[in-house]
Amino acid sequence: MRVLGVDPGLTRCGLGVVEGTPGRASLVAVGVVRTPSTDSLGHRLVAIEREVEQWLDLHEPDAVAVERVFAQANVRTVMGTAQSGAVAVLCAARRGLPVALHTPSEVKASVTGSGRADKAQVGLMVARLLRLAEAPRPADAADALALALCQLWRGAAQQQLARAAAQTRLAGVRR
Amino acid sequence: MRVLGVDPGLTRCGLGVVEGTPGRASLVAVGVVRTPSTDSLGHRLVAIEREVEQWLDLHEPDAVAVERVFAQANVRTVMGTAQSGAVAVLCAARRGLPVALHTPSEVKASVTGSGRADKAQVGLMVARLLRLAEAPRPADAADALALALCQLWRGAAQQQLARAAAQTRLAGVRR
Repeated sequence: MRVLGVDPGLTRCGLGVVEGTPGRASLVAVGVVRTPSTDSLGHRLVAIEREVEQWLDLHEPDAVAVERVFAQANVRTVMGTAQSGAVAVLCAARRGLPVALHTPSEVKASVTGSGRADKAQVGLMVARLLRLAEAPRPADAADALALALCQLWRGAAQQQLARAAAQTRLAGVRR
Repeated sequence: MRVLGVDPGLTRCGLGVVEGTPGRASLVAVGVVRTPSTDSLGHRLVAIEREVEQWLDLHEPDAVAVERVFAQANVRTVMGTAQSGAVAVLCAARRGLPVALHTPSEVKASVTGSGRADKAQVGLMVARLLRLAEAPRPADAADALALALCQLWRGAAQQQLARAAAQTRLAGVRR
């Protein structure tokens, strides 16, 4: 399974693709889209759309994971995150790709075991899980990979649960 | 000049087109896009994109005005507003159309004279300015028209200012 993780933002939007199975994932690509704050919102969103489309064309992920935005101190930052995230979700949904939304604490818990892990810890674990020499930089790139890994883990767990539930239902029918 | 106003929202997204000059505008079209809350975010954004594209194709506005989202009490609602608004901004910018963002209080002040006007007052003034028998319903439809009217007024004022500044510069050169 191949997942594109998107850490949305207007100034820096992290993109990371991982492939594999839970516990055994490898890096496919990682990068950051930057748009100048002097550009209009429209131009910035168009630039992000173009880049996300290119990544989808090139890496053909099976699923896309985007950060779910919650209340934060800085409302302006939250807006940019919501707006750029919406563009990524739109691009994926237009192709019929499944889109998963994960909160930052879900992502941190998934890769470090703690929902309160700091940036450095997330970067370190992403590097370890993907067998990289060092943490991807900037932090947005590492966060995008962490989102993709989170989806790989959680997606597999959800499939297991669904399988178990199906077997239980089957057992019920047989009884 | 023809303006499409967009009052963004996932559940109800108001769309309104007006044409004319400041003080003399008429209604071209008004409507509301609804997407079910049971649909995924991706499906909802794709549905809104499709509808906005159809309105742009059909009504060919010269500019698009979208509500600028600010801090509000309900963070979930703000997110939906930011996400659906981003889709409208993206659609307009992709076509090279100018996009203006106005805060709710700018819009209210523009059509009622008061930034604190209530929904009923905005609806009443929209109906009066566009010579309609009654306020457009639901409120999202009236708000979309108010946004379009606000842009018509403000755009014209900005052009006047630009003209005045150009004449002043010209006068300075002649002196």
